[in-house]
Amino acid sequence: MESIPSTMRAVVIDSYTAGIDHVKVEERPTPVPNAGEVLVRIAATPINPSDLSFIQGRYGVRKSLPTVPGFEASGTVVAVGEGLLEESWVGKRVACFANDGDGTWAEYMATTPENCLPLPDNVSDEQGAMALVNPLTAYALMDKAQSMGVGAVVQTAAASALGKMIVRLGQRMEIGVVNVVRRDGQIAELQAVDAQYILNSTEPTFEKHLREACRQLDVRLGFDAVGGEMTGRVLRAMPNGGHIIVYGGLADAPSEIGVDQLIFRNKSVSGFWLPLWIRDQGVEGMAKAWREVQTWIGGDFQTDVRARYTLDAVQEALHDYTGQMTGGKVLFVNEDE
Amino acid sequence: MESIPSTMRAVVIDSYTAGIDHVKVEERPTPVPNAGEVLVRIAATPINPSDLSFIQGRYGVRKSLPTVPGFEASGTVVAVGEGLLEESWVGKRVACFANDGDGTWAEYMATTPENCLPLPDNVSDEQGAMALVNPLTAYALMDKAQSMGVGAVVQTAAASALGKMIVRLGQRMEIGVVNVVRRDGQIAELQAVDAQYILNSTEPTFEKHLREACRQLDVRLGFDAVGGEMTGRVLRAMPNGGHIIVYGGLADAPSEIGVDQLIFRNKSVSGFWLPLWIRDQGVEGMAKAWREVQTWIGGDFQTDVRARYTLDAVQEALHDYTGQMTGGKVLFVNEDE
Repeated sequence: MESIPSTMRAVVIDSYTAGIDHVKVEERPTPVPNAGEVLVRIAATPINPSDLSFIQGRYGVRKSLPTVPGFEASGTVVAVGEGLLEESWVGKRVACFANDGDGTWAEYMATTPENCLPLPDNVSDEQGAMALVNPLTAYALMDKAQSMGVGAVVQTAAASALGKMIVRLGQRMEIGVVNVVRRDGQIAELQAVDAQYILNSTEPTFEKHLREACRQLDVRLGFDAVGGEMTGRVLRAMPNGGHIIVYGGLADAPSEIGVDQLIFRNKSVSGFWLPLWIRDQGVEGMAKAWREVQTWIGGDFQTDVRARYTLDAVQEALHDYTGQMTGGKVLFVNEDE
Repeated sequence: MESIPSTMRAVVIDSYTAGIDHVKVEERPTPVPNAGEVLVRIAATPINPSDLSFIQGRYGVRKSLPTVPGFEASGTVVAVGEGLLEESWVGKRVACFANDGDGTWAEYMATTPENCLPLPDNVSDEQGAMALVNPLTAYALMDKAQSMGVGAVVQTAAASALGKMIVRLGQRMEIGVVNVVRRDGQIAELQAVDAQYILNSTEPTFEKHLREACRQLDVRLGFDAVGGEMTGRVLRAMPNGGHIIVYGGLADAPSEIGVDQLIFRNKSVSGFWLPLWIRDQGVEGMAKAWREVQTWIGGDFQTDVRARYTLDAVQEALHDYTGQMTGGKVLFVNEDE
C-alpha cells in the first residue's frame, strides 16, 4: 500500500463573491476517508463551466467555506474508510465525482463509492478526468431526444467540448444536429468532427437559415447553454411545439422567451442539471449510462485538451480558461509520485 | 322565420399595423351561411385581451383583410346553410365562437355548428356573450391544476375577469389561489370574490411574501397573463419543480426566466392557447367542459359588465377598454329588433 503524505496541495476558495482572482492554493491536511468513503489520489481534473459558476456562487449548491472546488476527476483509490473492503477498492483507477465536501482540485479527495466509476484500461487519466460531466450530460440530453423520437435537435454553444460530444452522439444515434456558434473560427472546429449543419448567430441571415434548417429537419428539441436572448431566438426558429432544455447560462442573463411562442406556438422551456438527473436514474439507470459512456470514451470520442497546469498554477489556468472557453479543455494534472 | 336584412353594421379592420384608432364601422352585406354553417344574429359580444392582440397583428392567427374582429358572442340562430336542419337550429340561443372567417363584432355572423354551444334559459345574453373564452380557459387551467394534484396555484393579473373566475373555481375545487395584482385598488376587487391571498407586485416586500405563500401552500403551478419580468419573478418564488403556464402577454415583452431556476431548480415554462386546447379535447372533452361551465355561468359566476356600447361606438369602446382592463368587461350590445 502506497504511503499517503499527511498534507497535500489543494485549490481553495473562502468566498463566493471575491471572484477568480482570489482563488488560491494551500497546503492542507490530506483528507482521511470517513466510514463508507474512499480516498482517491487525483491524477487529472478539468475546469468546467460549472466550476466557474460554483466559484462565483452561482451554482445550484454552495458548500460551506472554505472549500476546494472541482466536481470531477480521474485517479486511483489509495485508501478506504471503515466498512469498505480494501481489496475491493485500493488500486482501482476511477473517474469520480466530488461529494458534498471538498472537491477534486487537490492531490487527494475523499468521496463515496457511488461517486466512483471504474475506468477501463484503454482510457487515459486525462480522458478519464473528463469522463463524467460532459459525457453523462450528452448522454442524458440525447437519450431525451431519442425517447421523444425526434429526428434532429438544435444546440447552442456547439463548439464546446460538450457540443462536439453531442455532434458525435448524433452521428452514432442517427439524430441530426443543427449547431449554433458565435464565431466563424468555431465552424472549423465543428467541421473537424464532421458536423453537418453549422450556423453563426452573429450573421444577419442567422434566423432565416436557422428557421429553414429547423423546418427541413423537423427540429422539435433544442439544447441551450447560453440563455439571454439566445434561448428565445432559437425557440422562435423552431416549428410549433418546439421545446428547449437550458443546461447552461454563458450569457449570464435570463432566458428571454417570446410570449407569443409559448401561447400560440405551443413551445416550452425547461432545464437540465446533471445531479438531479443522476438522482432520478437510480443505480440501474446509472449503470446503463456508464456502460454506454465507457464505449465512447475508450473509442474515438476523445476530448481535446488545450492546456495542462499544476494546481499551483491555478491563477494562470483560470485566466487561460476564461479567456477562451472553446478549443479544448484546460486540465489540472498532478505529477506522478 | 324572421326577416334578415340584406346589410348589417360591422366593425372592420383593414390593417394589422394601423392600431386601434383605425378600427372602423361599416355597412356590409349580411353574410349568407354556406353549406354546413349557421347564421347567428349577435346579441352581445365582449372585448377580450385576445381581440386587442388580434387587431394589432399579435394574435396566433391573422385572418385575410379586411376582416371583422371578435372571437365570442351570444345570439340566436336565424338561418342555416345547406345540409343543416332548420328545425334543429333556427331559434336556438347560443354562445358562439367565430370560425376562421369574419368575427363576432357585427350584427350577424356565419359560423359552424361546432362553434355554437346552447345557452341555458337562466343565462342572459350578456353573460352568455362571455361564456366561452374566459370560462373555458379557467376550466382548462384549473383542470390542469387538478390533474397535477396541486393544492394551490399562483396567478398574475388576478383582478381580470378570468382571474376572478379562477379564484371562484379554486373555492369550488378546493385549490388555493395566490393572487398577484399591480395596484392596491385591485385588492378590493378580489376581496369581493372572497380571494384569500392577494399580493401587490409593486410592494417592496412582494417577492419575500410571495415566496412565503408559495412555500406555505406548496404552490407548484402558476398562471401568468403578463410576461416580461413578471414570469420570472413569480417562477423564482415558487418551490423547486415549479411550472408556469403563460396565457397572456400584458407586459408586451418576452418572459424573462432565470437560467438558474431552469437548471438548478427544475422549473419550467409553457403556454396555453384556447383554440389548441379545444382541438385537443375532441367532442367528448368539450361536451364535458361545456356541461361544467354551464353550471357556473347559470349560477353565481356572473362576470361584471362595466360598460355597454353599440357597434357604432367602437372607438369609444376600445379606448374605454384599453384605459382600464380590469373592473368589469366592456361589451358591444346590439339593439333588439
